Amino acid sequence: MKISILTLFPEMCNAFVNESIIGRAVKSDKVDIECINIRDFANNKHNKVDDTPYGGGMGMVMAAEPIYNAYKSVVGDKKPHLVYLSPKGATFTQKKAIELSNCEHLVLLCGHYEGIDERVIEEIVDEEISIGDYVLTGGELPALVVADAVCRMLPGVLSDDICFTEESHFSGLLEYPQYTKPAVWNGREVPEVLLSGHHANIEKWRREKSIEITLDRRPDILESAELSKKELKYLESLKSAKHDI
Amino acid sequence: MKISILTLFPEMCNAFVNESIIGRAVKSDKVDIECINIRDFANNKHNKVDDTPYGGGMGMVMAAEPIYNAYKSVVGDKKPHLVYLSPKGATFTQKKAIELSNCEHLVLLCGHYEGIDERVIEEIVDEEISIGDYVLTGGELPALVVADAVCRMLPGVLSDDICFTEESHFSGLLEYPQYTKPAVWNGREVPEVLLSGHHANIEKWRREKSIEITLDRRPDILESAELSKKELKYLESLKSAKHDI
Repeated sequence: MKISILTLFPEMCNAFVNESIIGRAVKSDKVDIECINIRDFANNKHNKVDDTPYGGGMGMVMAAEPIYNAYKSVVGDKKPHLVYLSPKGATFTQKKAIELSNCEHLVLLCGHYEGIDERVIEEIVDEEISIGDYVLTGGELPALVVADAVCRMLPGVLSDDICFTEESHFSGLLEYPQYTKPAVWNGREVPEVLLSGHHANIEKWRREKSIEITLDRRPDILESAELSKKELKYLESLKSAKHDI
Repeated sequence: MKISILTLFPEMCNAFVNESIIGRAVKSDKVDIECINIRDFANNKHNKVDDTPYGGGMGMVMAAEPIYNAYKSVVGDKKPHLVYLSPKGATFTQKKAIELSNCEHLVLLCGHYEGIDERVIEEIVDEEISIGDYVLTGGELPALVVADAVCRMLPGVLSDDICFTEESHFSGLLEYPQYTKPAVWNGREVPEVLLSGHHANIEKWRREKSIEITLDRRPDILESAELSKKELKYLESLKSAKHDI
C-alpha cells in the first residue's frame, strides 16, 4: 500500500514516518508513505498558497491550483482514493480504517487556515473525514491519525496478528486492566486471580472487568458487544446494582 | 501554560512542537511544551520499560515505575493535571479542550504496547481521554491532538481572536463552503452571491449552506445549534424536501 500526504508542513509528517511502529513498517517495505509539500506546487513568485475568501470574512483560504497540482504529481496509472481531513467530514471509525486499509493508493489532503477552495474539493476529493468533534490548527495530525490506524491493519505491521483482534473498539468492549512486574508496587498489589495460574478464572475476571468498565464509561458501545448468556446476566446484575445506589 | 508530554517517542512530539502554529506559539512563549522520554527513567541495565502481563496474554505492558519516575520529574510546586491517552477514556470534545486550556500545568501520558500497569493509573492519572473510536499504535498522536486543540484556545496563539468563535463545532453548525481567487478555476465558477458585495445576502447564503451541510452530514449536532426563526423555517423546508425524495 502507498500513502501520499499532501501538506504545508511535511516535517511533521516525516517525523511520524520515521518513528515508532509505522517507521518500522516503512523501513521493512510493508507500506510506502510520502509527504508532499503543497507549497512546492505554487506557481507564483512568493510560493503563496492562500488568499482572502470571496464574500469576505476572517482568515485565508487555500487556493485550488497548488493543491490540484500537488495531487496530480502523486497520481500514477490508477486514480488514488483521496481523503480530505476536514471538520466537516464524516466521523472516523475503526470500520473506516479497515475499509481504507484495502486501498492500493491512499492520498491524505491536509487543510489549513480557514479551509480550502470548495472547487478543488469537488474536483478531486472522494470523501471528507473528521477525527472527532474538536477543532485543530490543521489537517496534519488528523492525517497522521488516519495513516496510523490504517497502517496497523496491514499484514505484518503489528508483530502479532492476533493483537488487534483483542483490542478495545474491536470486540465492542473496552479493555480489562493490565498489570506487570513487580507483584507489589508502591504498596499496591496485583489482583490475586491474575497470579493464580487458573486460566478459566482469569478469563472470566477479565471479561467481567471489561463489561464493568464499558458499562461505566461507554454504555453507548455496549449494545453491539457479543456477550454470552452468563455475561448478559452479569451485566444485568451490574445495572441493577447501579440502579440501587 | 505548560504542557509536559511523557512518551517513548519524543522525536515525534518534538517535530510537532517545532512546526506550524504550535511551533510559533512555543517560540513566542505563549506556551511551554516539553517532551520527556519515559525510557530515561527506567532503572535497569537495558532501559527496559515493559514486561509480560500478569495472567498471561499477548503483548507487553508498560511498567509502573518508569512512568511514575518520569511523572515525578515534571512535577513542580503544584500538582499538575494528568491526562492518560487511552482507548478506554472519555471521548475528547471541544468542551474538554476549553476546560483543559485553563490548566496551569497539563501532563499528557502516552501509552504503548498492550497498555500500562493499572496501578500507576490509580496513583497519578486524573482522567483518561480517547480521541475517537479507532485503534492507534500508541498515545503520541492522541497527545498531540489534545495539545493542539488546547494550545489554539490560549490567548495570542491564533492570529485573530475572532477566528475560533466562527468555526465548526463551535456554533453547532459545520462551516459553509469557502472560495478564493481566481473567480473561475478549471471551468468552475465562484457562486455569484459571493461576488455581489451584498453583505446581508452573503451572510444569509453562508448560514443556509451551513444548515444544509450540517443536516446532510451531521444531523446529530444540529439540535444544539442556535438558529433564528427564519433559519428554523429554512431547516424545516430542507427536511420536508428531503422527505419528498
